[in-house]
Amino acid sequence: MIKFNEKIKKFCKNKNNRLCLGLDIDNKKLENSSIQYMQDYVIDIIENTIDLCPVYKVNFAFYERLGSQGFKILEKINSIINGRSITIADAKRGDIGNSSKFYAEAVFDYLGFDSITVAPYMGFDSIKPFVDYKNNGVFILCLTSNKGSNDFQKKITDDKEIYKHVISMAKKNNCFNNIGLVIGATNDKYLKDIKLLSGDLPWLMPGVGFQGGSLDESISIGDQNGLALINVSRGILNSGNRTIADIRKATEEYTEQIRKFL
Amino acid sequence: MIKFNEKIKKFCKNKNNRLCLGLDIDNKKLENSSIQYMQDYVIDIIENTIDLCPVYKVNFAFYERLGSQGFKILEKINSIINGRSITIADAKRGDIGNSSKFYAEAVFDYLGFDSITVAPYMGFDSIKPFVDYKNNGVFILCLTSNKGSNDFQKKITDDKEIYKHVISMAKKNNCFNNIGLVIGATNDKYLKDIKLLSGDLPWLMPGVGFQGGSLDESISIGDQNGLALINVSRGILNSGNRTIADIRKATEEYTEQIRKFL
Repeated sequence: MIKFNEKIKKFCKNKNNRLCLGLDIDNKKLENSSIQYMQDYVIDIIENTIDLCPVYKVNFAFYERLGSQGFKILEKINSIINGRSITIADAKRGDIGNSSKFYAEAVFDYLGFDSITVAPYMGFDSIKPFVDYKNNGVFILCLTSNKGSNDFQKKITDDKEIYKHVISMAKKNNCFNNIGLVIGATNDKYLKDIKLLSGDLPWLMPGVGFQGGSLDESISIGDQNGLALINVSRGILNSGNRTIADIRKATEEYTEQIRKFL
Repeated sequence: MIKFNEKIKKFCKNKNNRLCLGLDIDNKKLENSSIQYMQDYVIDIIENTIDLCPVYKVNFAFYERLGSQGFKILEKINSIINGRSITIADAKRGDIGNSSKFYAEAVFDYLGFDSITVAPYMGFDSIKPFVDYKNNGVFILCLTSNKGSNDFQKKITDDKEIYKHVISMAKKNNCFNNIGLVIGATNDKYLKDIKLLSGDLPWLMPGVGFQGGSLDESISIGDQNGLALINVSRGILNSGNRTIADIRKATEEYTEQIRKFL
């Protein structure tokens, strides 16, 4: 069976793209805020962008705030995508082993996502139950796109920043070639350094678009000897009047920009 | 309105207890694994322990693995408890501000929990949206009960361990007196030090029972000039044959042990 990191690369090559579309739908911003409308809207977006998008990322916060009805949409997403693209559960989970194992069951077995984002604060034993699903991918928060990334991630200990220790941990435990890193695109000046250390681990890069990260730097550095997945959520979803045509157009524009660097 | 940290103290004093019962129900270990049975079982446990337990903690992993049906049980828990005890959503959330705001909506507004556990890796701006719900509580992961707590939490930077920086962050931002810390009871030898730094911030202490943490040290140090919430989940839920009578008995035994130190 093809390893996760190879599989996601293959999808990106086949669609000649690195765009990861974030399905972060804020139902209160839609003309109709009902859950049925939101679900139809998500399906419409997928069906009208899937020829271009190798990867979709779903931020669970946008669904959990709608309770079990929102969770029902999460249950549908993977059967709609149905292997045509890779899916990332952006859930930022992480707990003691026993609990992380159940989160992995929830996201991989029950909801059928291909991969997940996890938080490293509790250490590798809190991440291992996800990595043990060797056909699924695990993107570990490394250097994030928000200002708070200065609070702990950039603190220096044992001669290097905490986020660099996360890179070492990721490299060391990548036995199944299914570990990647979350690297915020807003960290332009750190990217070259991270590339040197992280080698061919794939990067999931939020922060382009609304948060102001540079697409140019992200793709040109991140995609060397590895893979840079450029996540865009609000930058596409909030285009024009939020119609499917507007979203399609924005997806095409981002795709075009990305392809300049491929 | 009474501040969250005062409110939780009041519940503990009124019930003369510090026990936080973890409702971490593994439905596969029950005689009937159906979701309806699990829901009735949770309700039974609550109704048969609520005279003793000032606090209940719900680990979301155990419910999310059952999908939207599990989420429906989460939707019921707070209306069952109905203000008779304090509830903690043990969800370990944390994301960029915009997303954390939606997680806070999910847990506080929609599900009605009194408080939540959050992960600090992304920094304070990822925690602030939870703290801004000034009538709700926020327990920040500080020094956890698992072995992986050695990986990052105990690394020294700027003259102190990362978990001590978390304590400083918590103290500095406790304007609404609604921040607490997660301190694993397995860290016996660190507790005195943490108490000196954390002052009157309440501690949520997992790790007693199944994980081997000392009840004695936890309560006698943690409860001085503050509050130690002793979380027990498997240590109670797995008692005897897992009947309600067994669980009641184990809850009484833990209560009795805790009261020796009050």
